[in-house]
Amino acid sequence: MNVVSYRPAADELSYTFGGRPAVGTVEPGTVLELYTEDCFGGRVRGVDDLPSAVCEFPYLNPVTGPFHVRGAEPGDTLALHFISIEPARDWAVSTTFPHFGALTGTHTTAMLQPPLDEVVWMYEVDKERRTVTYRARRGDFTVEMPLDPMHGTVGVAPGASEARMTITPDAHGGNMDTPELRAGVTVYLGVNVEGGLFAVGDGHCRQGHGEVCGTAVEAAMNTVVAVELIKGVPTPWPRLEDDAHLMSTGSARPLEDAYRISQHDLVTWTSTLTGLDLLDAYQLVSQGGEAPVGNVCDTNYTMVAKLPKAYLGTPDIYEGAHSRLRTLGERYLASR
Amino acid sequence: MNVVSYRPAADELSYTFGGRPAVGTVEPGTVLELYTEDCFGGRVRGVDDLPSAVCEFPYLNPVTGPFHVRGAEPGDTLALHFISIEPARDWAVSTTFPHFGALTGTHTTAMLQPPLDEVVWMYEVDKERRTVTYRARRGDFTVEMPLDPMHGTVGVAPGASEARMTITPDAHGGNMDTPELRAGVTVYLGVNVEGGLFAVGDGHCRQGHGEVCGTAVEAAMNTVVAVELIKGVPTPWPRLEDDAHLMSTGSARPLEDAYRISQHDLVTWTSTLTGLDLLDAYQLVSQGGEAPVGNVCDTNYTMVAKLPKAYLGTPDIYEGAHSRLRTLGERYLASR
Amino acid sequence: MNVVSYRPAADELSYTFGGRPAVGTVEPGTVLELYTEDCFGGRVRGVDDLPSAVCEFPYLNPVTGPFHVRGAEPGDTLALHFISIEPARDWAVSTTFPHFGALTGTHTTAMLQPPLDEVVWMYEVDKERRTVTYRARRGDFTVEMPLDPMHGTVGVAPGASEARMTITPDAHGGNMDTPELRAGVTVYLGVNVEGGLFAVGDGHCRQGHGEVCGTAVEAAMNTVVAVELIKGVPTPWPRLEDDAHLMSTGSARPLEDAYRISQHDLVTWTSTLTGLDLLDAYQLVSQGGEAPVGNVCDTNYTMVAKLPKAYLGTPDIYEGAHSRLRTLGERYLASR
Amino acid sequence: MNVVSYRPAADELSYTFGGRPAVGTVEPGTVLELYTEDCFGGRVRGVDDLPSAVCEFPYLNPVTGPFHVRGAEPGDTLALHFISIEPARDWAVSTTFPHFGALTGTHTTAMLQPPLDEVVWMYEVDKERRTVTYRARRGDFTVEMPLDPMHGTVGVAPGASEARMTITPDAHGGNMDTPELRAGVTVYLGVNVEGGLFAVGDGHCRQGHGEVCGTAVEAAMNTVVAVELIKGVPTPWPRLEDDAHLMSTGSARPLEDAYRISQHDLVTWTSTLTGLDLLDAYQLVSQGGEAPVGNVCDTNYTMVAKLPKAYLGTPDIYEGAHSRLRTLGERYLASR
Repeated sequence: MNVVSYRPAADELSYTFGGRPAVGTVEPGTVLELYTEDCFGGRVRGVDDLPSAVCEFPYLNPVTGPFHVRGAEPGDTLALHFISIEPARDWAVSTTFPHFGALTGTHTTAMLQPPLDEVVWMYEVDKERRTVTYRARRGDFTVEMPLDPMHGTVGVAPGASEARMTITPDAHGGNMDTPELRAGVTVYLGVNVEGGLFAVGDGHCRQGHGEVCGTAVEAAMNTVVAVELIKGVPTPWPRLEDDAHLMSTGSARPLEDAYRISQHDLVTWTSTLTGLDLLDAYQLVSQGGEAPVGNVCDTNYTMVAKLPKAYLGTPDIYEGAHSRLRTLGERYLASR
Repeated sequence: MNVVSYRPAADELSYTFGGRPAVGTVEPGTVLELYTEDCFGGRVRGVDDLPSAVCEFPYLNPVTGPFHVRGAEPGDTLALHFISIEPARDWAVSTTFPHFGALTGTHTTAMLQPPLDEVVWMYEVDKERRTVTYRARRGDFTVEMPLDPMHGTVGVAPGASEARMTITPDAHGGNMDTPELRAGVTVYLGVNVEGGLFAVGDGHCRQGHGEVCGTAVEAAMNTVVAVELIKGVPTPWPRLEDDAHLMSTGSARPLEDAYRISQHDLVTWTSTLTGLDLLDAYQLVSQGGEAPVGNVCDTNYTMVAKLPKAYLGTPDIYEGAHSRLRTLGERYLASR
Repeated sequence: MNVVSYRPAADELSYTFGGRPAVGTVEPGTVLELYTEDCFGGRVRGVDDLPSAVCEFPYLNPVTGPFHVRGAEPGDTLALHFISIEPARDWAVSTTFPHFGALTGTHTTAMLQPPLDEVVWMYEVDKERRTVTYRARRGDFTVEMPLDPMHGTVGVAPGASEARMTITPDAHGGNMDTPELRAGVTVYLGVNVEGGLFAVGDGHCRQGHGEVCGTAVEAAMNTVVAVELIKGVPTPWPRLEDDAHLMSTGSARPLEDAYRISQHDLVTWTSTLTGLDLLDAYQLVSQGGEAPVGNVCDTNYTMVAKLPKAYLGTPDIYEGAHSRLRTLGERYLASR
Repeated sequence: MNVVSYRPAADELSYTFGGRPAVGTVEPGTVLELYTEDCFGGRVRGVDDLPSAVCEFPYLNPVTGPFHVRGAEPGDTLALHFISIEPARDWAVSTTFPHFGALTGTHTTAMLQPPLDEVVWMYEVDKERRTVTYRARRGDFTVEMPLDPMHGTVGVAPGASEARMTITPDAHGGNMDTPELRAGVTVYLGVNVEGGLFAVGDGHCRQGHGEVCGTAVEAAMNTVVAVELIKGVPTPWPRLEDDAHLMSTGSARPLEDAYRISQHDLVTWTSTLTGLDLLDAYQLVSQGGEAPVGNVCDTNYTMVAKLPKAYLGTPDIYEGAHSRLRTLGERYLASR
C-alpha cells in the first residue's frame, strides 16, 4: 500500500481552485493522510476571537493541496474515497459574521438593514463518545449532538485558466458543504487540467442542512483519502457514491437551479446506467429520489440528488471504483 | 369517541381554499374518516388516459372539505392529527404533463422549447407487502419501492376573502407536497376565518423529494384525521410535529425563500419554546436542523425545516396537542 | 358618447380580484370617469400617520370596481384605454414600512434582522407645473421631479373561483406597478369569468423602476377609462399598447421568470403578428426590445417587454382597438 | 496628448480577468486606441458558420488587454472613458446556440427538453446611415434598427489570485452586457491588484434589454478609451457616469439580487454624495431612479440602477473625472 502523509505549512494553504502549482504529485492508488485547517485558518479559538478581527478577508476557507495525480488528463475522472475524517482538536467553533448566512442580508442579497451581531460559539468535541456539545452564549442552555464529521470543500482546478475562490462551489467542486461527504463516501470529480489538481478542506464536526447561519461546527481534521483515476470517463458535476446510494450535486443560484442541475445529472446518469429511456428515468428518480440540501449560504447554493442503488439493478458504476476503494480503505484502517 | 365519516360526491370536491361554504361542521375532538380523490379526480386510469385529454383544466387536485371547526376564530390554531392514510385502490398513477415539473420549461419559467412528452405510468399498490411497483414504459425494467403514504395538500381558508387554487401552497397550507405529512404526524394551521375551513387531498403512495417530474405516485386515500382546536395561539405558517421532531414549512419562490421562511420560523419557534436568545437559537438550528425538500414544481415551492425535539429539553408544544391526539389515534385504531 | 361616472363609497372599495360582485355593469364603448383611492385608503395624511398604525392590514391597495362588461365571456379580451390619469389632491405620500421593499428582509425573504424604520414622506403635487416635490425627512434637501401619473393596479377576476389580494400581480393583472401604464395607453386583459370584472386602483404621481422602497408617490386619482370588448380573442398575460410600442407583461418570482414570461409572450405575439418563424421573432425581439422593470417589491415581481411597432411593418393589433380608443379619448377630452 | 494604439494578435486575446500578465502598461491620462474582436473571435462569418462547429469552447468572448495602469493599487479606482466605439466591419452577427439564452434550458437552468436550433443571423452595418439591418432566416422579412454601439465586457482582475472567465460579470466587471456602456460614458472600476489590469471586449452594434436570445448584434470594434486613475477611492461594484446620470451595476443570480446590489449601491452612493440620510436616499432613488436591464442570459445576470444627476444638486463625483475625460475625448476627436 502506497501511503503518503502531508501536513501543509501555513504558507502552503490554498485559497483558490486553479491558479497555483501542485504541492505534490500522487500516483493513482495512493492513500493520502492529510491535515486540513478549519475555515478560519485556526485563528478563532475563543468567543472573543471575532472572525472579522482575527481573520484577513478574503483569505478564508483554506484547502490542503492541490495534488497532481499522475496521468490525469481532461476528460478523465478522479475518484477520491474518504477513508476517515477525524477532528484534529478537542474543540470546534461556529460563528455568525456580518453579511453572511441565509437569514441575513448579504453582499449579494443586499439590504439596508444593519448586519446581525457577530457571535462565536465554542464546541467541545468528544471523539470517544462521538458527540459535540453546544452551549448557548446567553443563558446556560447546553445540548449534545452526534459527531458526524464531513468536509465542506473538495474540488479540482477548473479549466481554461480559471481560478475560483475556495468558498465558491461550482462544476469543479469547491465549497459544496454537504453532510453527505462523510467517511465511507467516494467523490467523483471531472478532470479539467493535466494532473487534476485536487484539494480538500473545511472540515465540519457536523452541519445542519443548508448551513443556515453560514458556518458549521468548524474543525481542523486528520483525513485519509484514497485516490484513483478513471481514464476516459468524464464527469460533468461532482458525484458521490456510498455503499447504498448514487448522488449527483448541483451548485448555482437560485436554489431551484442547484436542484435542477443535481436532479438532471441524476436522471441522465440513471438513464445511462440502466438503459432506461430519459422519461422513464425521470419518473423513477421522481418517486425514489431524495434531495438533501447542501448549503444555502455560500456564493453558490448546493443541492444533492440521491438515489438508492438498489432501485437500479446491478449497474456498473465508474468501473467499480467505489467498492475497490472501499476495500483499500478497510485494509488501510486494519493496518493502523 | 366522536367519529364522523365523509365521502364527497364528485360535485362536492373543492378546487380552492377559501371562496366556498363548508361541507360540514365538526366539533374539536372529532375523529374524521375521509375519502380523498387523487389529483386527477380519478380520471387517469390507464396509460392512454392523458391528463390533458381526460381532465378539465384547471380543475385538478381536488380536496375533501372544507370543514368548519366549531369555535375556531382568527388567531387560533387547528391541530390536525393524521391517524392513518391508506390507499383506496390497488393501483396508483403518475404522469408528466406539458409545461409542468422541475426539469422542463413551464408557464412561469417560460421557454421556447416544445414541451416534454406527456406520459402516464401505472403503479401496482400492494397494501399487504407495503410496496408500490414501478414499470418503465419503454423496456421491461421494473422495481419495487416502499409504500409510504402521505397527503400533498392540506390547508385552511386564507383571510381577507382570498381564495387560492388548491395547487398553490402558501401561508394557509395548500399543496405543500412534503413526504413528512405521513400518518402519525400532527399538522398545525393558523385560523384566518371563522371555522377555519380546512380541507385535505392529493394523496401520494410515495414521493421523491421535490416531486421533480411534477407528480408523485398519485392515489385516492382513505384517511383518518383527529381534529383539535387550540384557542388564542396563532401559527404563522403550517407546522408539523411527529413523535421526535418539530417542523416548520415555507412555500415561496425562489426556493431559497421557501428555505428562509421555514428556517426563520423554526428559529423563532425554537427561541420561544426554549427561551434561547434569537442568535443562540439560530446557531442551534444551524447545526442540528434538517431541511427536507417538499416540492420544486408547484406554483410555489415548499421547504420543511426540521429539528429533533430531543435538542430542546422538554418544551411545551401547543399545550401537548400532539401527544393527546396520538393517544386518541391509538384508541381509534384499537377500536377498529 | 356614453359617459358614466363612479366614485366608490369607502365600503365599496375592493381588496381582491375575484370573490365579490360587480359594483356596476358597463356597455362596451363606454367612457368611465373613476375616482380611485390611494394605496393607504387615504389614511396616511402626514408624516406622523404611520401606515402600520393608521391602516388595517391586509386591507391595503383598494381598487375601484369591479365592473361587469356586458357580453364579456371567457376567451374574450377587454381593452381598457386610459384617457387621463390626474391626481385628485395637491399632495401625495410615500413610506417605508416594516418588512416590505426590495432592500429589506420581508415575510418571504425572511431575515432575522430588525426591520427598517417606518418613515413617511409627503410630496407636494403641482398639476400646473407637472411636478412633485420631494423633501428629505432629515435635513433640508428638496428636489422637484416630473409628474408622470400612472396606475399600479389594474386587472380582472381570475378564473375557477379564485380570488387574489389586489397587492398580487399575476396573469389576471393586479398590482403590476409599471410606469408604462400611463394616460394614452391601452391595456388588454384576458377575460376569465362572465363580465370580466375589471377594477383599477393604486395611482402613482410617479414611480422609479422597481418601486425599490415598496411604495411610489401614492395618490388618489381621477381617471378616465374607455372600455372595449374584443370577442373571441384570448390574451394570456396583460398586454399594453401605446402609439409607438407593443408591451407584454410577466409577474412571477424570481425576477428572471417575470422577465421570461414577458419576453416569451412578446416573442410569440410578434411571431403571430408578423408571420415570422419563432426563432426569427426571438432574434428580432432580442435586438430591438426593451425590458422596463415594473415592481421588485410585491408578492410577485413584474417585468414588461416592449417593442417598437415600427419594427413590425403594419400588423393588425387587436383589430385596431388602440387607435379606435385613442380617437374616442380625444373626442372625450375635446368635449370637456 | 498621449495616444497609444494596440491591436492584439490572435494569441494575445484574453479569456479571463486575472490569471495572466499585462499586454502593456499605460500611464494615467493616456488615450488608448484599441481593436476588439467579436465574441466569436471573428469565426462566425456566414449563416453556415455554426458557433458550436467553428468556435472552440470555452474560448469565447475574447477581450483586448489586460493593461497595467501605472500606479494603480488596491483601494484605488480606474476611470475608463469611452471616447468612441465604432464597428470595424460592415457586417455583424447574432446566433442562438444550444443551452444558452433566457428562453431555453441551460446548463444551469437544467431541463430535459432538447435544445433550440442553432441559427445564425447576419446583419449589414451601415456606419454612415447609423443602422443595422435584420433579415429573417425564413421568409423575406427585413427591418432596419438604429446602430447603437456598446461594449458588453469591461473589467479588471479580481483580487486574491482569482481568475474569472470573461463571460461572467461580477464585482470586478466582466460581461455585464448593458447598452448603457456607450461612447460618452465613463466606467469606474475598483482596483483589486497592482496595475488594475483592465481589459475590454464583446462589442455590440446594438442589443435589446437582457440579450434574451443570448447574443447581441456582435461586432469587432475600433474603440478609443481614455484612462484615469483616482487614488485612494474604492469602488465596490462597477459604476458608470454619463453627462446626465449616475449608474451603479449589480451582477448576480437570481435577477432580483442583481437589482438589489445595483440599487443598494446607488442608494449608498447617493447618500454619500448628498449627505442625505440612508432612508432619505432610499426614498429619492425609489421615485427618481431607473433600472435598465443588462443581461438575463450570462452566468450572472446584470442590472443597472440609474439616477439623473440633476436630482442631486451639484455633487462632487469622483473628483470630476467624467468631465475632465469628456474634455480630453473631445480634444482627441477634434485632433483626428
